[in-house]
Amino acid sequence: MAYGLLNGKRGIISGALDEKSIAWKVALKAKEEGATFTLTNAPIAMRMGAIRQLAEQCSAEIIPADATSVEDLENLFTKSTEVLGGKVDFVLHSIGMSPNIRKGKAYTDLNYDWFKQSIDISALSFHKMLQTAYKLDAINEWGSVVALTYMAAQRTFPFYTDMADAKAVLESIARSFGYRYGKERHVRVNTVSQSPTPTTAGGGIGGFDKFYDFADKTSPLGNATADQCADYVVTLFSDLTKMVTMQNLFHDGGFSMTGISEEVMQLITKEAE
Amino acid sequence: MAYGLLNGKRGIISGALDEKSIAWKVALKAKEEGATFTLTNAPIAMRMGAIRQLAEQCSAEIIPADATSVEDLENLFTKSTEVLGGKVDFVLHSIGMSPNIRKGKAYTDLNYDWFKQSIDISALSFHKMLQTAYKLDAINEWGSVVALTYMAAQRTFPFYTDMADAKAVLESIARSFGYRYGKERHVRVNTVSQSPTPTTAGGGIGGFDKFYDFADKTSPLGNATADQCADYVVTLFSDLTKMVTMQNLFHDGGFSMTGISEEVMQLITKEAE
Amino acid sequence: MAYGLLNGKRGIISGALDEKSIAWKVALKAKEEGATFTLTNAPIAMRMGAIRQLAEQCSAEIIPADATSVEDLENLFTKSTEVLGGKVDFVLHSIGMSPNIRKGKAYTDLNYDWFKQSIDISALSFHKMLQTAYKLDAINEWGSVVALTYMAAQRTFPFYTDMADAKAVLESIARSFGYRYGKERHVRVNTVSQSPTPTTAGGGIGGFDKFYDFADKTSPLGNATADQCADYVVTLFSDLTKMVTMQNLFHDGGFSMTGISEEVMQLITKEAE
Amino acid sequence: MAYGLLNGKRGIISGALDEKSIAWKVALKAKEEGATFTLTNAPIAMRMGAIRQLAEQCSAEIIPADATSVEDLENLFTKSTEVLGGKVDFVLHSIGMSPNIRKGKAYTDLNYDWFKQSIDISALSFHKMLQTAYKLDAINEWGSVVALTYMAAQRTFPFYTDMADAKAVLESIARSFGYRYGKERHVRVNTVSQSPTPTTAGGGIGGFDKFYDFADKTSPLGNATADQCADYVVTLFSDLTKMVTMQNLFHDGGFSMTGISEEVMQLITKEAE
Repeated sequence: MAYGLLNGKRGIISGALDEKSIAWKVALKAKEEGATFTLTNAPIAMRMGAIRQLAEQCSAEIIPADATSVEDLENLFTKSTEVLGGKVDFVLHSIGMSPNIRKGKAYTDLNYDWFKQSIDISALSFHKMLQTAYKLDAINEWGSVVALTYMAAQRTFPFYTDMADAKAVLESIARSFGYRYGKERHVRVNTVSQSPTPTTAGGGIGGFDKFYDFADKTSPLGNATADQCADYVVTLFSDLTKMVTMQNLFHDGGFSMTGISEEVMQLITKEAE
Repeated sequence: MAYGLLNGKRGIISGALDEKSIAWKVALKAKEEGATFTLTNAPIAMRMGAIRQLAEQCSAEIIPADATSVEDLENLFTKSTEVLGGKVDFVLHSIGMSPNIRKGKAYTDLNYDWFKQSIDISALSFHKMLQTAYKLDAINEWGSVVALTYMAAQRTFPFYTDMADAKAVLESIARSFGYRYGKERHVRVNTVSQSPTPTTAGGGIGGFDKFYDFADKTSPLGNATADQCADYVVTLFSDLTKMVTMQNLFHDGGFSMTGISEEVMQLITKEAE
Repeated sequence: MAYGLLNGKRGIISGALDEKSIAWKVALKAKEEGATFTLTNAPIAMRMGAIRQLAEQCSAEIIPADATSVEDLENLFTKSTEVLGGKVDFVLHSIGMSPNIRKGKAYTDLNYDWFKQSIDISALSFHKMLQTAYKLDAINEWGSVVALTYMAAQRTFPFYTDMADAKAVLESIARSFGYRYGKERHVRVNTVSQSPTPTTAGGGIGGFDKFYDFADKTSPLGNATADQCADYVVTLFSDLTKMVTMQNLFHDGGFSMTGISEEVMQLITKEAE
Repeated sequence: MAYGLLNGKRGIISGALDEKSIAWKVALKAKEEGATFTLTNAPIAMRMGAIRQLAEQCSAEIIPADATSVEDLENLFTKSTEVLGGKVDFVLHSIGMSPNIRKGKAYTDLNYDWFKQSIDISALSFHKMLQTAYKLDAINEWGSVVALTYMAAQRTFPFYTDMADAKAVLESIARSFGYRYGKERHVRVNTVSQSPTPTTAGGGIGGFDKFYDFADKTSPLGNATADQCADYVVTLFSDLTKMVTMQNLFHDGGFSMTGISEEVMQLITKEAE
């Protein structure tokens, strides 16, 4: 069902890799709710091509941008403003990558060049997006910026290694920049901390399947899906949440507030027998 | 602007005392978004009469209930189901009162009978609402329950005395019951932690005005109004936030995440000179 | 090994039921570190007699007190001051009881009289202790008050039912009273959030054993023992932690900051096979 | 007063710049409590010379190390083990620097090379220390590692700019590495979040004095001093806190848990008049 929550709003959505991506679902949902937007991805990620299909479905233009390059981001905001016919109202940051995870380096044996890349791609890119938008004054008053994150920024999930640290920076940037952008232009900045989601990116993490089940059994409502995440993100882009800022918002079926569930307790007991 | 976010939804809204009340604004907004609902208040609070005006405006029936009485709450849910033609989809808990605050008792000189009343009225009433609804199976699958709270549950604000403790229980109940209600019936339970709001109830707290200004100067977006709170609560009642549960959600223009603002620093400096 | 950390200090230790009690261990350790103190317990709990053995071991006087009775608490502080020859420097609150847990009531079927008793005994007793001490001016400048709590105040552990809510109030009281007592008399107030501990009280909670193992497997250092908790509490009573106040301090081998451990992941996988 | 809390323990203390440094105070206190240790600093910082005086006072050897260089850190741990006659029991990380702050760049106009340096020096250095120690197996079982941090990692303090983000990573690393080090070798890792402290480094931050007063007026016990911080750190290095790990511990006179103090409210009111 569509409500027109984003009627007349313009935006930029990053990180739609394929149809499992949360960003992909956000794009479809934002379209449905009346928004126009541009799509962006790293040139390297885009070779995969699926994004063109999404772009057609959403009548959206694709503007490739390496999110670690300020120049590319300037181009992204400038072009988006041109293409969309005005400043943007919302931005989705859904960018993350850890070479250490990809290459199976343990957290006690990190490659530091890769660590820096994890931070650069997954967190610093968010500051660059915000600073670029701020300098170009590319976001309308009361605009909304959302970045996707994960609870490993609060507690340790061993398989998540240095992405935990990257997400901690990301969430800090949301607070730090949210303060300034809020004060100066009434732009709000939040992070959404989503359930483990079987995206192509998430699937690359070792032990993901096992953990997915554990999280599902722990969360009283089960794991939140990518579609449900898109629904939630749309409320954060809408005019109904204007005063929510600098927050890290758990969208996780209750996982974050559950110490242990009865299902997990039964599982453990069975195992012990 | 209305979106039809609550089209076809039924609910119960407590705590609309007068037109400054957040609950009052939630009622108007819920109506606007397509919901039908009943209004409830303590018989004693209702003598003030203003609620009848709201009821007319919203075509809502008033069902008086002392929220500390399980019997009254049973009647509230049973009657509401009858009047509305089915189980409810959302409930707002906006009930709080501290005799110790009203009568100016310091936190180091609390009257314990009154302390118990603060807990009973402001927090235990929430458990009673949830338990009554649960036993009567009065809330639809994927229903949403919201209680209003304040950040004094996390940090000390001296003027808030024992309401801080009451809000801490309230938020704990949201998590504790949210776990069970989520698991059994997919009902979600959250609290919204709102900026200081110049309601008739809030205004009774000593030093409120001074603190209101401090909060406004600290929050990068300024204090959130009752109207904005209503907007936000409506998103939490909608189908777009189905997987958000057991959370305490700050709706405060960024206050909770701001250590100190530049405006407050200037204020302090000026004073020092 | 003993360091003399509490040489010359006087205190009050509540809640030593038998030799499994954390309070029991705190008493032994405080003695070892040079403190003199009184022991207190509810008259009803003391019938069990074991406390006399502890009292002898520690050359401590026993002053029975129902911690829900302000009169008893006044007597406790007055007598303690007399017996010990001066105001006290530290107080341990280790009191908790939930009739709903004892009688197996589910959280969705609470008996509200019992709920109020849970709050009264487990949380309000802490405020009464503090307020009584404050009014009698029975704690020395830079004194230290510690209450034992559990992480269920932050996240839901189903078997803990209404004790979760009671602990939430307890922790709130520590903050709220800690602010005032700190400001007026430089007395600090903290809570220690301990690993599940196989005490006689803890053992009464259904599913405790299973959960104990889960917590042990989750915590990188394993569950903290009662003896280790006593060690930690002694540091909080010492002069080395004078500026730590209003905090909830996790003493749990890392449980609180671990999302999932590798051992739990293996357990789950095995079970799934 | 000395207790012998660290009798027989060996350690490494970084970051003692001059006698205002917290690390300097920790060194003096650790010495007093019976520890032997090495001191380390960046070669560049050490030119200032004061550290030699401290080294003499503590009979400690100085081992210069650029904490961003794994090679230097390997040398630090290897040499320390040799000099001290065995593996170390404790490590203090007290290293932080932001070129953006030094050069007055606003948070909305960061220089990204400098941002990366802030992260590298202030946070990644902590991972490098831990990973180096882990690989060399240079820390004894039940050893203790502490890093100094600041609350800007949780809430925004405008003048702290990108150090907030660096501290967020630092605290994340404490959790992430604490999990592994705890599990494998029973080494604990914590951060201490200290009051604003008028060190030579802290003093470089614009608006520090004003903020120092605000924090002092907000904290019920006032700001914690560097000496008091040293006292606290010593308890964390001792055998009495073996089960505390992965925690961020506020040592701040209650600032973190105080929403507003009466003194600040008076200040604001006066100003308003």
